[in-house]
Amino acid sequence: MHTLIVGLGSMGLGAAVSCLKAGISTTGFDVNSDALRAFSDQGGHSTADLESIEPVDAVLLFVVNADQADTVLFDSPLMSKFKPNAVVINCVTVAPYRASDISSRIVKAGFGYLDAPVSGGAVKAKNGQISIMGSGEPETFNRVQPILDAISERIFRLGNEPGAGSQMKLINQLLAGVHIAATAEALNLAASLNMDLHEVIDVIQSCAGTSWMFENRGPHIANGDYTPLSTVNIFVKDLSIVIDEAQLQGAVTPLSQTALSLYQNASDNGLGLEDDSAIVKILAAQSGSVLPGGKQ
Amino acid sequence: MHTLIVGLGSMGLGAAVSCLKAGISTTGFDVNSDALRAFSDQGGHSTADLESIEPVDAVLLFVVNADQADTVLFDSPLMSKFKPNAVVINCVTVAPYRASDISSRIVKAGFGYLDAPVSGGAVKAKNGQISIMGSGEPETFNRVQPILDAISERIFRLGNEPGAGSQMKLINQLLAGVHIAATAEALNLAASLNMDLHEVIDVIQSCAGTSWMFENRGPHIANGDYTPLSTVNIFVKDLSIVIDEAQLQGAVTPLSQTALSLYQNASDNGLGLEDDSAIVKILAAQSGSVLPGGKQ
Repeated sequence: MHTLIVGLGSMGLGAAVSCLKAGISTTGFDVNSDALRAFSDQGGHSTADLESIEPVDAVLLFVVNADQADTVLFDSPLMSKFKPNAVVINCVTVAPYRASDISSRIVKAGFGYLDAPVSGGAVKAKNGQISIMGSGEPETFNRVQPILDAISERIFRLGNEPGAGSQMKLINQLLAGVHIAATAEALNLAASLNMDLHEVIDVIQSCAGTSWMFENRGPHIANGDYTPLSTVNIFVKDLSIVIDEAQLQGAVTPLSQTALSLYQNASDNGLGLEDDSAIVKILAAQSGSVLPGGKQ
Repeated sequence: MHTLIVGLGSMGLGAAVSCLKAGISTTGFDVNSDALRAFSDQGGHSTADLESIEPVDAVLLFVVNADQADTVLFDSPLMSKFKPNAVVINCVTVAPYRASDISSRIVKAGFGYLDAPVSGGAVKAKNGQISIMGSGEPETFNRVQPILDAISERIFRLGNEPGAGSQMKLINQLLAGVHIAATAEALNLAASLNMDLHEVIDVIQSCAGTSWMFENRGPHIANGDYTPLSTVNIFVKDLSIVIDEAQLQGAVTPLSQTALSLYQNASDNGLGLEDDSAIVKILAAQSGSVLPGGKQ
């Protein structure tokens, strides 16, 4: 079963490596030569040329947004390489209506489609331990089960409708985006109070204030290390999708909007490609606080 | 070692029961007769009359705020019942400067003081499994160690200065208060999208969007059960302390302020004594969404 991974960023690379480890024939595609080399270095087959690839049974999409997914699927040679019954597994965070639109065009062309956004971060991706928020036809799921098993620890089947997985991902991104901002706000206040941020993280982890993001991103701030695993710009994009979808439904999202302002401010101030926890630098500048790693 | 618990709300009652279970001679004091009965029903000795109590070695304060702590310590017969070397263990969430002030007056009167705010919620309190964010003299800690061990699973010693424990509690309450609001916002959006809230909670628990508060309070919303364990008004108070302290330090707190507006709005609309997760009803009213349990 030949699998193509489109997009070898931190999540896509992790999924590609997990497929390799599971003995699945895997090709990695990206337009970025560093990304291709990262996969080749781990024994993978990389290419920047979709014309050159062998016929594929499944495509895992790990590009940045719905427009990129659209372009690679419908404005590239990719679909001409699909075997009959090929399945598109869309792991990109997209608005539910975009998932439905892409799905209907893929199905019309005679192929299978799974809405399959993921969660867990770069480390879990590398270890095949992400969670998949999936929706689609049971038969389509079954056809690519070995691939899903290779990249994930948990697979949630959220019904047959494309879009259901994307809805769940939006709920996750709302929480994740607000929690990173809350982590930044809490640790900036702690820095203002001259507290030891490592001690703060150690204590809060045992208390009711903890979150997955606090435990994951807090140490980035305490170490003053903003090497990007997931960037500020990702949350400018994802919280915008959350808020757009909420507005479509008439739902108010005051915290998401406050958090988005912070990510947008950080991006406008040149931090867009740093780790998402770098939003704390904006708070520190506004507060006159000094973070670990010195004045930013 | 005779211990007095002042304030038999959900946390104080839990701590009192934990002391009893550990074989510590314990008296519970409250002005509310239901609270007294709750402790008596579990085999405890309750009283509404501080004049009547036996001399005490330690007092655990579980009242609502710094003013109440002040009143019971300095404007009641309580201190006349202190044995020499008695210790005040202040578990109330207060501003760090209030902790310092109370401490200095207690120490001046010849007694010991521990800054000892707690975290963990009513269930953990009942099981003696809360976390204590403590600060104070090591010798004072040692004198009341059996009591601290009886009520808690983890005791953090955050230095000798009163106020250090309270600073940590503020960081915790900032995160907890924002996370409850994020939980409400996420589940309200999910309700707007006609998603099954129990399924949302089940999935997100395995994803990067999870938090202690999401896992704890999310089910209240999914079940439409707003029986108060901790109330909306508690977070009106605690986030106000957080924001006041941040302003003293010059630190900006945009998410705390957005969350506080929501708690304040809920309190102004008659929800102050419901479970803190009831803030979701304000979001639902603004969104036209229907939550489990029907139109609120």
